[in-house]
Amino acid sequence: MNDDLIARRKRLLGPHVTTFYETPLHLARGEGAWLWDTDGRRYLDCYNNVAHVGHCHPRVVEAIARQAATLNTHTRYVHDTILEYGERLTGHFGHGLSSMVMVCSGSEANDVALRIAQAASGNTGIIGTDNTYHGNTAAVSQLNARKPPVGGYRDHVRQIPAPDNLHPIGGSRAAQEEAFYAATETAISELQASGHGAGALILCPYFANEGFPTLEAGFLDRAVAAVHRAGGLVIADEVQPGFGRIGSHFWGHERLGFAPDIVTLGKPMANGHPVAATVTRPELLETFQNAFRYFNTFGGNPVSAAAALATLKVIEDEGLQENARVTGRHALAGLRDLAARHMAIADVRGAGLFFGVELTEQDGTPATALAARVVNEMRERGVLIHTVGKFDNTLKFRPPCVFSRENADLALETLDAALSSAVATR
Amino acid sequence: MNDDLIARRKRLLGPHVTTFYETPLHLARGEGAWLWDTDGRRYLDCYNNVAHVGHCHPRVVEAIARQAATLNTHTRYVHDTILEYGERLTGHFGHGLSSMVMVCSGSEANDVALRIAQAASGNTGIIGTDNTYHGNTAAVSQLNARKPPVGGYRDHVRQIPAPDNLHPIGGSRAAQEEAFYAATETAISELQASGHGAGALILCPYFANEGFPTLEAGFLDRAVAAVHRAGGLVIADEVQPGFGRIGSHFWGHERLGFAPDIVTLGKPMANGHPVAATVTRPELLETFQNAFRYFNTFGGNPVSAAAALATLKVIEDEGLQENARVTGRHALAGLRDLAARHMAIADVRGAGLFFGVELTEQDGTPATALAARVVNEMRERGVLIHTVGKFDNTLKFRPPCVFSRENADLALETLDAALSSAVATR
Repeated sequence: MNDDLIARRKRLLGPHVTTFYETPLHLARGEGAWLWDTDGRRYLDCYNNVAHVGHCHPRVVEAIARQAATLNTHTRYVHDTILEYGERLTGHFGHGLSSMVMVCSGSEANDVALRIAQAASGNTGIIGTDNTYHGNTAAVSQLNARKPPVGGYRDHVRQIPAPDNLHPIGGSRAAQEEAFYAATETAISELQASGHGAGALILCPYFANEGFPTLEAGFLDRAVAAVHRAGGLVIADEVQPGFGRIGSHFWGHERLGFAPDIVTLGKPMANGHPVAATVTRPELLETFQNAFRYFNTFGGNPVSAAAALATLKVIEDEGLQENARVTGRHALAGLRDLAARHMAIADVRGAGLFFGVELTEQDGTPATALAARVVNEMRERGVLIHTVGKFDNTLKFRPPCVFSRENADLALETLDAALSSAVATR
Repeated sequence: MNDDLIARRKRLLGPHVTTFYETPLHLARGEGAWLWDTDGRRYLDCYNNVAHVGHCHPRVVEAIARQAATLNTHTRYVHDTILEYGERLTGHFGHGLSSMVMVCSGSEANDVALRIAQAASGNTGIIGTDNTYHGNTAAVSQLNARKPPVGGYRDHVRQIPAPDNLHPIGGSRAAQEEAFYAATETAISELQASGHGAGALILCPYFANEGFPTLEAGFLDRAVAAVHRAGGLVIADEVQPGFGRIGSHFWGHERLGFAPDIVTLGKPMANGHPVAATVTRPELLETFQNAFRYFNTFGGNPVSAAAALATLKVIEDEGLQENARVTGRHALAGLRDLAARHMAIADVRGAGLFFGVELTEQDGTPATALAARVVNEMRERGVLIHTVGKFDNTLKFRPPCVFSRENADLALETLDAALSSAVATR
């Protein structure tokens, strides 16, 4: 790594564009589940969900290259690809979710979703969890748990406690559903009392940023019903769990078994091409369009639509949801074996190709520093992961969905060694 | 045009995704300044600034295709291309504007710009014009003149009268500068009185959506100074005039001769690939990063950076700013000839490849319906333009910057015929 590169980067992009690792990665090439740095060293990518169907998948690359060479314009003109994509995408949804707005980022998708909820409900109050992230626009970043907005959270935002495996809300795993429901009702009451009303409950149905706690189907049913009773809408942010990653289902909300009014999509949708979408029922979209004038120049352009279409076809044709289910199950079993041998592993959890282990100290407190050491140890050993959760003490594995059984075995072996080394040297 | 396509489009994208023309265009292919529909009919594109260096420019296509096949990830990893691009881009700026945030859309760029201004000034008040558009996020759309926000404009937004050629603010062209300055001072006072303070004056330095009135260098000097005295920042939204389009200068703010604190870029930046940026001084970027946690997954990824870099190189290598200057001057002279023969043309104006004519009725009122007829007549005759301005009575020409003298002549001939026909049949 050239120090000059880091200096140029700081000068151009500012001092706070962090790199994941103590030794930043300078990448040159990607293919499938693998990344290569500029020295030719290979890394197993266990982190990047954006490259959902694998880095530089030839079918997605070819779709982008071909369409970029043919036509790229905007949706004021009629084009077939966005229609073919929209029909194929909404074919993966139930609950009347058959319309969409194509945008450029998950942030834009959630920004639109909040306004759909406002237009439809007439309310501006928003409920999220206390350990969430839904994007970076001024409006959406009001919900972010990690960095409170300048001047504090605004009055229309209510944060409710996120479910958790080791420190369940309500005091026990069995009490979590009741606690989450009660907190939702309290938030609704507060928003109604303050005049905002209940506009939306927005959440990741896998609670990805919350550390993906293990939840039963039906967990959200009473909270969802409460929001609906209050006239609000439920937004499922499927940016992380969506498109088959969780294996058992194509979407996170299917796994929990609830019916969202709006679904937002982002990162993995076009394998890295800047594409995102807000999917909703036609009558909600019309209400939004009547209330807010909205046009997105780049959203749904022919190249973006082609990239998204190719990605979706690869997911279907290569059976990546099934791969996520089978490989994820194998990996989870391996993590359970590791847990039997590593004291620091306090919990093993996940679904499909989105899994991890939570590390604690012997007294049960979060092993945040140890987790950071393991992440860096693994990077040095050629495997890329990161941490998640309120205390950043959960190791997160969220690889491209072409991740194989062999890839999983290598990741597990490396974790075994890295954990031993990190524990030994602390 | 297949009626079924329109029905599918409405069903998927909602009833309010309008098409520009009475007979929607169903496009298949683009090259240079030309577009072809699915029936093989060719159209001269006099409207689409997104395809800044020409539709499907082979160098941009090749850069996208090559990088997409090599590596696409995010800026948490170090990559050379964003650095090479950032240095080349900021080399086109003075005033210490040497840092940037890369994002996916002009809307995101302005959303960030407003927060930079808030972080640096400590103020939340925003001043824009009464006929502007800066994008579609919830925060930025508060400024939009065409569609007031649900519940009305919020108290932190102040709209000041836009300069205008036929109906100058202050009563005369000579009085506009004073009137604009006075309105800025009034807005600042109001924002201070209401506790918001002056955070930002945001404007397109070409006043593109306002109908690009003819303004002298120095027009904004007193208004800019007033905002700075009040502790606020000045944001130049260069999405439309930037990258050499106006011919005489690379940026609109250079032509008016003022020093913005923040510049936002969008549509033409990567010739249609979803790329945008907020450019500012390093100390302002750091202040923003300290106040707001910000990371944009797709922003500045290797493919986006490669697309933007190739576009900038083409602008430089093919001398497109000079082409805009020379071809624009030729076109403007031609429009003046037409004005001598067409009663409906009340004003001819513009700079570089961003020009047009304002149409009025004999009594001087805006000829909005006539302008719409001309737009559709020209589309039928194979030339794509659109309208702009408060009354949509100004015909806007804003072609790809590869637009040639021959293209201009064809556009002028077609306008001549379309105007005659539209006037005769009304």
